[in-house]
Parts: sequence; structure tokens; C-alpha cells
Amino acid sequence: MSQKRIAIFGSTGSIGTQALEVIAANPNIFSVEVLTAQTNDELLVQQAFKFKPNVVVIGDERKYTKVKDALAGTDVKVFAGEKALEEVAALDIYDLMLAAIVGYAGLKPTLEALKNGKPVALANKETLVVAGDIVMQTAMEKRVPVIPVDSEHSAIFQCLVGETRNRIEKVILTASGGPFRGKKPNFLVNVKRDHALQHPNWTMGAKITIDSATLMNKGLEMIEAKWLFNLKPEQIQVVIHPQSIIHSMVQFEDGSIKAQMGVPDMKLPIQYAMAFPQRLPNDFPRLNFRNMNTLSFEEPDVKTFRNLGLAIEALGKGGNMPCILNAANEIAVYAFLRNRIGFLDMTEVVEQTMTKISHIEAPTLEEYFESDGEARSFAASLIQM
Amino acid sequence: MSQKRIAIFGSTGSIGTQALEVIAANPNIFSVEVLTAQTNDELLVQQAFKFKPNVVVIGDERKYTKVKDALAGTDVKVFAGEKALEEVAALDIYDLMLAAIVGYAGLKPTLEALKNGKPVALANKETLVVAGDIVMQTAMEKRVPVIPVDSEHSAIFQCLVGETRNRIEKVILTASGGPFRGKKPNFLVNVKRDHALQHPNWTMGAKITIDSATLMNKGLEMIEAKWLFNLKPEQIQVVIHPQSIIHSMVQFEDGSIKAQMGVPDMKLPIQYAMAFPQRLPNDFPRLNFRNMNTLSFEEPDVKTFRNLGLAIEALGKGGNMPCILNAANEIAVYAFLRNRIGFLDMTEVVEQTMTKISHIEAPTLEEYFESDGEARSFAASLIQM
Repeated sequence: MSQKRIAIFGSTGSIGTQALEVIAANPNIFSVEVLTAQTNDELLVQQAFKFKPNVVVIGDERKYTKVKDALAGTDVKVFAGEKALEEVAALDIYDLMLAAIVGYAGLKPTLEALKNGKPVALANKETLVVAGDIVMQTAMEKRVPVIPVDSEHSAIFQCLVGETRNRIEKVILTASGGPFRGKKPNFLVNVKRDHALQHPNWTMGAKITIDSATLMNKGLEMIEAKWLFNLKPEQIQVVIHPQSIIHSMVQFEDGSIKAQMGVPDMKLPIQYAMAFPQRLPNDFPRLNFRNMNTLSFEEPDVKTFRNLGLAIEALGKGGNMPCILNAANEIAVYAFLRNRIGFLDMTEVVEQTMTKISHIEAPTLEEYFESDGEARSFAASLIQM
Repeated sequence: MSQKRIAIFGSTGSIGTQALEVIAANPNIFSVEVLTAQTNDELLVQQAFKFKPNVVVIGDERKYTKVKDALAGTDVKVFAGEKALEEVAALDIYDLMLAAIVGYAGLKPTLEALKNGKPVALANKETLVVAGDIVMQTAMEKRVPVIPVDSEHSAIFQCLVGETRNRIEKVILTASGGPFRGKKPNFLVNVKRDHALQHPNWTMGAKITIDSATLMNKGLEMIEAKWLFNLKPEQIQVVIHPQSIIHSMVQFEDGSIKAQMGVPDMKLPIQYAMAFPQRLPNDFPRLNFRNMNTLSFEEPDVKTFRNLGLAIEALGKGGNMPCILNAANEIAVYAFLRNRIGFLDMTEVVEQTMTKISHIEAPTLEEYFESDGEARSFAASLIQM
């Protein structure tokens, strides 16, 4: 069997580097054809020396010469800029794209991969949050799978294997509740960046860690689930499960529930998505039920964690509203990470932006881009005040 | 689509009557072609009037005339006796056998169904415990599925759907622990029949309820799992899970665990096995994770519940040893149910019988029958002393 040729878009981030660990552990299964990074040219060059891809792309064009020079003695082709990401995604040099670019920037290359008939292992949730209808429509037309990498959606995907003819009653997205579970607004108002970056169970990038602390992450996952699994909003339930052992569940129309579980470790869903439909043996840590603490469940506190309520509202309204939510949230989170606004201010920014930008029921891709831009500008103007 | 014609062997027991409820709720999906009972002629006749099967069989030949007379005005064909069970199983008048005869008596008709090329929904665990190699070999040769009805094995079966090419690392059989979880021998020595018949979570027949109280049931399930899923003994782990919400789990070679969950209700696995690969909508009670108690897990106490240890020993020895274990256990449980021996005496009977009867590594079907007979005689002789 020949190797599966992987294109990692976003190879220097948390998902990208873990994906490369998986690939390094399975050299007969995978090869690396494409690596891309936005700004971390040094790590990109290191990765290129180790994995010998066909192509690398550095998003930040100012770093092109630096990368080009560093790789001068190799066969690696070097490109730079946002447009190059799309152009490389359209090449027929890989078998699977791992879409691990953080945030909205991941959308265009992912769409190009799908148009190109390439399966996508999707670690970028904004792609579906912003333009899920267009993305899934493209995947369907090209008959290529979108395999989720998020642990929750990977869990649901795994539970659905072999059940395609059976109707889903609902999916149950589990949420750890983040570092501030049980806290109230009078506590949250004083939360600082470094505290919010300490997630109890998962090691992830900064943006998603903040989103986990505000529960926006779970809201974005609800929207993502809607598109991935073709669900109605009322079929998607969030349950707080502080131990993060059950990664999510599917309830079928006969009432039977299937769950996927494991030690919280992103390498498992990354490996699963890259190797699907095959599972690969590994030495990742195993659960041990004989010395397991109890598993508990509770309702999310949407009164305190209002971001989740806003996401549910956007999910219900549909159209460009999730796109607006996401854009405002990205601006708000990066402002919080730069200590520009407080923890609860993030919710204010999102809410006011959702109120301000016009709702469009069935936007074109261009209209999504416009809504995204308007939402970002407006959110940014709120922060600068 | 035409109806699936069901032959229920053992229609008046706990599984059989619940299967008929499922069929009554889905008249367009299922028809009843065969009903059989060992002794309960009155319920068998009632069922025949309601479901209009092609054939009924009453095991107890002394009741033949009574059943025949009661059904005189109908088209239902009436047969009697053990041999008739096998003969009817060999007829080409049904699409699926629900093998729900309790105990060792279920083996021969089930084997006939498989030889007849009919899929079997297997609620009789002794069939696999006694002669799993021969049963599964026959199913494989005829390329017909054996679909488990036991909630634990149904859970594993459901978790394996769509995963046929992926290797199992281990299966985790959950056990409620029964009514005497946490008790010690000084308590168990005085346990009486009526107390042991009160299972905390599941409503089942008397034999299996006692086996649940002694943990023999879990031991028999380990042996059953070995054959159903082609496992090595060390791939089968038992975990006590008192809430009986997780019905069992599969750990794949990538460390990912899939679990099947639900309200403890045998109708779900019965319906699943009869309708497989389709799931049918129903109004069975649903789990609600938002008001769920915690789920807990602990190691089984094999020092106190020695039956489980004996079953693990039989599983390891293989050959006719599980058959001997099962035969001795049936004699012991029925003696306990008739208040002839005490709770802990059941273990003594099984242990002494396992020591007494000769081990055969790879028995023929005839040798299985002989071992079964010898074990029963010996176990009975212990009780009469």
C-alpha cells in the first residue's frame, strides 16, 4: 500500500505539530507533501528539513526570503502569501488536507481542497461556523469526506461509522466546563489572560483555550455539528462533563446512545482523522476503568457563560449570524489575549456586533466575506473606544 | 419491503414476551412464524391467538393435546417435544430465529437454525458457553450473523458496527455487581432465594437473576464474548458499574473506546437484534444526562464472588471446561431456587464438578453433550448428599 500524502495547512500550531508527531510515528503510512505556517518561519523550516515536503508556504510574505534562503540547499518549493495557500490547496500533489489553520483564515484553502476533490481532516472549526452550507455542499458535490479533528466531533463521527442508514435523534456534545466552571460573573469580571489559559484537561492553542473558558468553543462546536452531521439546532445538546472522558455521544432514534471515550489527548482524533477509515495502533495513554474517578454530568450555566447563549441564538437564526458571531469573537479573544479588554467584555463585543450587522438569510460566499469584514471592523471599533 | 418473519424459540419467558411486545409495536416490520414454550401452554396459546404464527411447539409432550385442542379452530400447526424444536428450526419458514430458550436446552435448535442458514438473535448464552466453537464455526460456514441480545454483547456488537477492519484491543464488560455488591461471605452465607431475586437495575428471568447475584452471569458473558467476537481471554475485562448505564465498551488498537449506553431495558437490545442492521424508532425511556447521577466504576471482588473466578478459570482452560461450569451451575442455581442449597453452596457445587469431570481440549459436539450430562449428574449427586 502506498503512503497517504498529507498536506498540513497550519503545521506549526498545536494541531499541526501533533499531527507531525503522528506522521513521524507512522512513516510507512503517511508522507508529508505540504507544510504551511503563518508566521513561525523557524519552526516551518525545521519541519521542512525533517519531513522533506514537496512544498512549504509561509503566510507572512515578509518572511519569504528568510524561508527560501534557509531551504536553499533542498528540493522544497517555497511560496508565500494568502493566495499561495489557496493555490497549493488546488494542486494534485496530496491525498488528504489537514486543515489546521486557526480561525477564519482557514476557510479559503479548505474550500479549495474540497473543490479539488481532496478529503479534508478538519481541525479548523471556523470553516464550518462561517460558511458551513457552502463547505458541506462542495464536499457533497465532490463526494469527499470532511473528517472532523475536534475531539467532540471526532467522537460523533466515530459513533456514526456503520450507522449511516439510521437516524440520529440527537447528539450530546460534552464540555469540560473550562477552568471557570461553577464561577459567577462577579468572579469572571476579574479573570486575567494567564488564568484563562489554564485549561483543566486539554492542551490546546491559545484562541481555543480562551473559547473553552467562555464556553464560546462549545457554541461554535454546536454550529459545526449542525453542518457536519446535518442536524437541526434542537438535535444538539450540550452537557457539562468535567472529566472530559466521554468526548461526545450520539442518541439514535431507537434511544440507544453511543459514546466515544479516551484520555483527553488530541493526538488520538488527529491520528483517527488522518488514517480514517483505518485505526492505527499506538502507545497513547489508555483509560483504566478500574481506577477511574466517577464520571459526572451537569447542565451548562448559560446565564453566567453568556457566549454559549449567543452561539445558540446565532445557530437558531442561521444565515450569516454564526459568521458574525465568529468574527466578533475572534476580535474579542485576541483583544483579551493582549490584555486590551476584560473577560466579560468579550461577550459584550460579540453581542453588540450581532445586533449591529444586518442578518442575511442565505448569503453567498462573497456576502459571508463581507459580513465577516463588517463584523470585525465593528468589533474592533468597540474595543478601541 | 416484506415483513421479517420471526421464529421465537422460548416465547413465554422474559425475553420472548418482550420480543412479542416489540413485534406488536412494529406490525409492518415483523411477522411471527414460530412460537415455542417448554411448559407454559396457557400463555403459548394466548400468544398464538394474538400473533397467528404458522407453527407452535410445546416442549413438554404431556401438554400436546391441551395445546392442540385449544388451537383447534385455527390454522396454527402444533408440535410437541424436544425433537420437534430442532425439526421446526430446520424449516425454511422464517427469516430470523430469536433464540430465547433458557439454559442448555437452547443449544440444539440454535445450531439447527444456523445449519439452516438462518440468522440468529441469540438471547441464550449457554449456547456459546457450552459449544461456542461449533456454533460460531457453523455460523461462519453458512455466512449468517449471530446477533447477541444480552445487553452487554449487544453493546459490544453495536460498537463494532462499521469497525470490522479495525482490531479490538479489549472489550470491557460492565457488571452492575448485582444486589450483593460490597457484601462479604459472612453475609452471603445467609442469603435466601427471594432476596437474591431482587436485582437493582434489570428485570430478567429467575436463572439469570441468580447468576447476576453470584457474578456467574458475568463469567458466562466473558465466555460468550470470547466466541462472539473472537477474543483471547486476556482481551476481556470485567468492570463493576453499579448504575448499569454503560452496557459495555470496546477499546480499539488506537486506544479509542466506544461505549453503548441506555436506560436498562431489555427491549432495546431485543429490538436491535431483531431489526439489525436497521434501528427502529420507539418510545422507550431515554437517558437524560442533565439530571444523571454520576457513573462509577470499580474492580470486581473475585475473592467474595468466587463464581466469577471459576468462570475465568474455565475460560482460560477452554475445551469442555466452560460446558462443565455451565452444567454444574444450572443444577446449582435451580437447587438454590428450590431452597435446597445455600447461596455459597452454589460455588462449591461448580468448583467440585470442575475438579471431577475430565478436561477435554477440543471436544466434539457429542463429547460436549457427554460432559454436560456427566457434570449435571455429578453436581446433582453433590446436592442430594
